[in-house]
Amino acid sequence: MSITAIDVIRAKRDGEALSDEQIDWVIDGFTKGVVADEQMAALAMAILLRGMEDREIARWTAAMIASGERLNLSTVDRPTVDKHSTGGVGDKITLPLTPLVAACGAAVPQLSGRGLGHTGGTLDKLESIPGWSAAVANEAFIAQLREVGAVICQAGEGLAPADRKLYALRDVTGTVESIPLIASSIMSKKIAEGTSALVLDVKVGTGAFMKEIGQARELARTMVELGRAHQVTTVALLTDMSTPLGLAVGNALEVEESLAVLAGGGPADIVELTLALAREMLAAAGLSEVDPAEVLASGRAMDSWRAMIQAQGGDPDAPLEVAKESEIIRATTSGYVESIDAMGIGLAAWRLGAGRARKEHKVSAGAGVLLHKRPGEKVAAGDVLAELRADYGSRIPAALSAATDAIVVAKQPAPSAPLIIDRIG
Amino acid sequence: MSITAIDVIRAKRDGEALSDEQIDWVIDGFTKGVVADEQMAALAMAILLRGMEDREIARWTAAMIASGERLNLSTVDRPTVDKHSTGGVGDKITLPLTPLVAACGAAVPQLSGRGLGHTGGTLDKLESIPGWSAAVANEAFIAQLREVGAVICQAGEGLAPADRKLYALRDVTGTVESIPLIASSIMSKKIAEGTSALVLDVKVGTGAFMKEIGQARELARTMVELGRAHQVTTVALLTDMSTPLGLAVGNALEVEESLAVLAGGGPADIVELTLALAREMLAAAGLSEVDPAEVLASGRAMDSWRAMIQAQGGDPDAPLEVAKESEIIRATTSGYVESIDAMGIGLAAWRLGAGRARKEHKVSAGAGVLLHKRPGEKVAAGDVLAELRADYGSRIPAALSAATDAIVVAKQPAPSAPLIIDRIG
Repeated sequence: MSITAIDVIRAKRDGEALSDEQIDWVIDGFTKGVVADEQMAALAMAILLRGMEDREIARWTAAMIASGERLNLSTVDRPTVDKHSTGGVGDKITLPLTPLVAACGAAVPQLSGRGLGHTGGTLDKLESIPGWSAAVANEAFIAQLREVGAVICQAGEGLAPADRKLYALRDVTGTVESIPLIASSIMSKKIAEGTSALVLDVKVGTGAFMKEIGQARELARTMVELGRAHQVTTVALLTDMSTPLGLAVGNALEVEESLAVLAGGGPADIVELTLALAREMLAAAGLSEVDPAEVLASGRAMDSWRAMIQAQGGDPDAPLEVAKESEIIRATTSGYVESIDAMGIGLAAWRLGAGRARKEHKVSAGAGVLLHKRPGEKVAAGDVLAELRADYGSRIPAALSAATDAIVVAKQPAPSAPLIIDRIG
Repeated sequence: MSITAIDVIRAKRDGEALSDEQIDWVIDGFTKGVVADEQMAALAMAILLRGMEDREIARWTAAMIASGERLNLSTVDRPTVDKHSTGGVGDKITLPLTPLVAACGAAVPQLSGRGLGHTGGTLDKLESIPGWSAAVANEAFIAQLREVGAVICQAGEGLAPADRKLYALRDVTGTVESIPLIASSIMSKKIAEGTSALVLDVKVGTGAFMKEIGQARELARTMVELGRAHQVTTVALLTDMSTPLGLAVGNALEVEESLAVLAGGGPADIVELTLALAREMLAAAGLSEVDPAEVLASGRAMDSWRAMIQAQGGDPDAPLEVAKESEIIRATTSGYVESIDAMGIGLAAWRLGAGRARKEHKVSAGAGVLLHKRPGEKVAAGDVLAELRADYGSRIPAALSAATDAIVVAKQPAPSAPLIIDRIG
């Protein structure tokens, strides 16, 4: 019997597991346009509501990898290791982490994305550096990995084209929030990029895709298994995303904060998470004898950063754009910062212009939120809690209400929650 | 807050009931192309898997009616009443029923469809009559209703365009088998055509969409409520579709059998169901004093048939096409016909060329299956059980195996099951 799109959709709709042949056929057909967008949309909804077994997810991922090329990094004479975050508010960790791990002796082939919605994208952040380009051809990618050990760039058209097409479709059909589809999307790109090892930062909390620890754990477990099935050493950290990471949320603002970390300073939570992820990456790359804290303190991570930015046309010394308009949020009572809601701050930064509502929109480099206090800090009435920045004053009022609501001052500080919740691997 | 397609999809995906505003917006947007096919496909799958409340189904139906024109039949000086069957094998009841009810004094505005898959379409059957045309403009439709009292034709482009578009989409996305979507599709067209009363023939059994009595009952109940909500007097009969109706399955073959019924003969089950549906239609139209059996016996139903066919360009006296090739199935043992599976016979007729696999295909007028025995009849080894007809001999072998398997001869006859199972209304 030949396979048809309707048979595959009906099988999943009725709660059956798809066969290897059905999965291979439907991904190949979708890539080539034989399976229509509306058919894949119906199938994606059926997968979201009916789920997939581990075997199906593994085959689905393999089929998406097979839809394009898989990079061969064997000519890079350092161990390769990459990191992926499921996305959070103020999550600029890739910026200091990638050059730090390169300075420790590994090669980091970091293919990143642009932001959509309330979480920013790594490429959007780096594009606030004058001259820097996210487009790197495959040969230049490998050469830069050899010479600098660090590349952060956009994925080439040839990598997992089925995933690119499916991701765009899921985005408009309400089928993003499916663990099998999220896991296979992330892992197909990371495996196709050719890395030997991978550390996942799976976010959980109000500012993350996964609001509940159970979902986050399931996503982490699924991705770790997918990595292993493809001979990629994979571990995951579950980390808190109920509070924004650091003080800066916005493109150029986050680059500035990353530079502070590379210079040996920066907010404690950013340094903690950067070092924790660096240790996991180095261990996965067989370099556990190197201490990333020492390399960070030595200034060698900053040297790697400069080389990485310059290799992609950027000027590491050029001043970053500053937004024209700003507004201050002050405490109206005295007490302690009890909580800063990640989703509220992410939404405020997005409304200020740091994020985009549609793929074709441009982001503002200078827009965003700069927190002046972290949860647990004591405040007096009238203290500055946060500063909002935007290119247009008209963007401020809606952002102001979201940011003001997000920062809660109480009589007593809340007990502090751990940033790193669990490790799976 | 403005409504977006993704919000509507997510709400249904997560098991929420859609608001009236969401339903109106999404149907209007889909009709105009603002809601993309892939978005409606994802929504249809979410509706299939999550269901809809009665209020949602009523609003969805109303929005599909509002997507186009609603015919006004108030200038027809007879009570209007229509009939709809959910489709079965050998179900040619519309052919004798429509002129019969017209001959009894009602006007029957019958908008019909073409067949897809194993059940034949009323228009396909009538198109085997030389000269007959399924296309009737709105003015001619009303004039024919006034003068003849009976029209069987295709729905105009202006009636429920949202349903037309959605039906085509559901057909390719595995989202046909949803009671809310089936009920709203049928009822939006029937209400938009302007009939005052409606009798539904909801089929249940192997040859029907609804294989189980519980589903069929739920579909019937949903449609009856939709009719009443739109001031259309609606009742439903649940009837058996585990056995084909009558002896003929195929386009011209079914026209011949219908003519036999109009001439006062024909198979007992066809006569029984035609009269039962006629009585329901006449009661719904306020004409319960007329006895359709008497009108059938009088020959006045045949007069109506001839007038109806002629009004649409057909020649009621022209000979019908006969297929070139045929094959006989004979009993291999003696006993009784225990069962004739409707799905098996439908599939055989479809393979012979009576049905189509794709909308753009043509059907064969002469192809089909002619049963020589009905369940319960005694047979001797060597008796003819059925005859297969096709334009091309190459179509016969696959049909032969399906038809042979469908007819079961046993030592004892099976207890006979009632044709009319229940009445809902």
